[in-house]
Amino acid sequence: MELTILGSGAAFPTLERGATSQWLQVNNDAYLIDCGEGTQRSILLRKCRTKYLRAIFISHMHGDHIFGLPGLISSMDLMGRERPLKIIGPVGLETYLESSNVLPSRYAVKITELEPDENGCIYQDRSVSVFSQPLVHRIDCHGFRFDENKKPNIRKELVEKYQIPGEKIPNILSGQDWEGKDIVITNSELLYYKVRPVSYGYMTDTKPINTPTIFTGVDTLYHEATFTEEHVLRADETYHSTAQQAAQFAHASSVGTLLLGHLSSRYNTSVGHLNEATLLFPKTFV
Amino acid sequence: MELTILGSGAAFPTLERGATSQWLQVNNDAYLIDCGEGTQRSILLRKCRTKYLRAIFISHMHGDHIFGLPGLISSMDLMGRERPLKIIGPVGLETYLESSNVLPSRYAVKITELEPDENGCIYQDRSVSVFSQPLVHRIDCHGFRFDENKKPNIRKELVEKYQIPGEKIPNILSGQDWEGKDIVITNSELLYYKVRPVSYGYMTDTKPINTPTIFTGVDTLYHEATFTEEHVLRADETYHSTAQQAAQFAHASSVGTLLLGHLSSRYNTSVGHLNEATLLFPKTFV
Repeated sequence: MELTILGSGAAFPTLERGATSQWLQVNNDAYLIDCGEGTQRSILLRKCRTKYLRAIFISHMHGDHIFGLPGLISSMDLMGRERPLKIIGPVGLETYLESSNVLPSRYAVKITELEPDENGCIYQDRSVSVFSQPLVHRIDCHGFRFDENKKPNIRKELVEKYQIPGEKIPNILSGQDWEGKDIVITNSELLYYKVRPVSYGYMTDTKPINTPTIFTGVDTLYHEATFTEEHVLRADETYHSTAQQAAQFAHASSVGTLLLGHLSSRYNTSVGHLNEATLLFPKTFV
Repeated sequence: MELTILGSGAAFPTLERGATSQWLQVNNDAYLIDCGEGTQRSILLRKCRTKYLRAIFISHMHGDHIFGLPGLISSMDLMGRERPLKIIGPVGLETYLESSNVLPSRYAVKITELEPDENGCIYQDRSVSVFSQPLVHRIDCHGFRFDENKKPNIRKELVEKYQIPGEKIPNILSGQDWEGKDIVITNSELLYYKVRPVSYGYMTDTKPINTPTIFTGVDTLYHEATFTEEHVLRADETYHSTAQQAAQFAHASSVGTLLLGHLSSRYNTSVGHLNEATLLFPKTFV
């Protein structure tokens, strides 16, 4: 998994930070998460290649997360895209795209609208499985967890030990346990990964969440940190988080690495965010 | 008049050229012409100041001329704008902005839709008068002419010579002729400008126009030149112009200076456009 931050600003693009968008590349498949104004130019600048793009995930219908979508859809059409594209996001997404008058002529777009409380698997292909988590914002908003789909290997020593017949192995590789005469060997015992599949969590825009979420244990978590603690009341009023609150969540959720973004343009530097977060969660990057 | 090119690309933004937008500053008043995706960031980059912005003029409803409008309107709202804003463009503009859900809460937006054949004065304030010219594109499209409104001075020697009473002078300054007992002195004889008012013409997107237009004699004309003559058939098919056609128009219209833009991304350099145009019209810039 390779993550490219295309924009990490809040509310509107500034010279320093573009509006929110991220590019997640997994082998030869790519996923766009949110699409603020200017995303298509950031994609060019960061040398991401839309030919790999399979699906776009939209967290919520605020302009700084969607105003780049009509242009991107339209430009890929003009550039001759033929590969179908899935776009997954909240209720209202389909009407927005239809009224923007950009649904392409050369390639198919399949739009899926998520229920406000949707929290299961919302997308799956050969490279990733994606899960949704309702967040707490002024309007319906979803976080996303991306789990890499890696092909597992079977432990040959167990196949020999329990004399598992060859014809049963495909079932085991696709997730079944093995039931012998007097014994059941669970799937997780039988399989292993040469390279561990990684997971990425994306949370913006949201108030701090204190209940268990699907982000527990992800390798890397992106959590919005629009404010620092100095403006915690403003964060509360506007349904956003501070860097400290993001770090608390990352700690409580036992994630590997924390990325902060969606910084308000009132801050000239990100040092305040970083200092505040690393006190609680050292492996933080802004 | 000071013109800032915010974007000069065609169809979609590239790393080299943003989508179409121009900023026209006249004293303390400013006007935006078209608003492709990324315009609000170009405004920051070029240090244009939206506090001066009085009106936005939209040529036509193709994405590369309008996709920056929702973001700009919304960002000025978030930044606390209170000054009313006029937006003038083709039929469909109002529906587009309403469905983008960005009409601001802090300031008033007045949208005016132009008839397809609208060709009179469409806007006037203390700094400029703006006129509309129907262009020839795949959809309704308008060019705009901006005439600087300068306060004229009266020729004192003529006031003395014809003994014009002081109370008549305001009428003359606002455009009337003077009628004496046996003589009529025309307004243009009576008035002069310390600094000559300048005019600017904006033409995009369009096929070449061979009939008289409102752009005759403008000081500076911006004319789209999506293609060079090598692709003249493609220009015709897509209702665009070549650099040579733009230069022919500039010559036939006796303009002062020609600006070319809206270059297709197929060209890695603008040298071809410049060479082709300057053969016919030497005072050309790309």
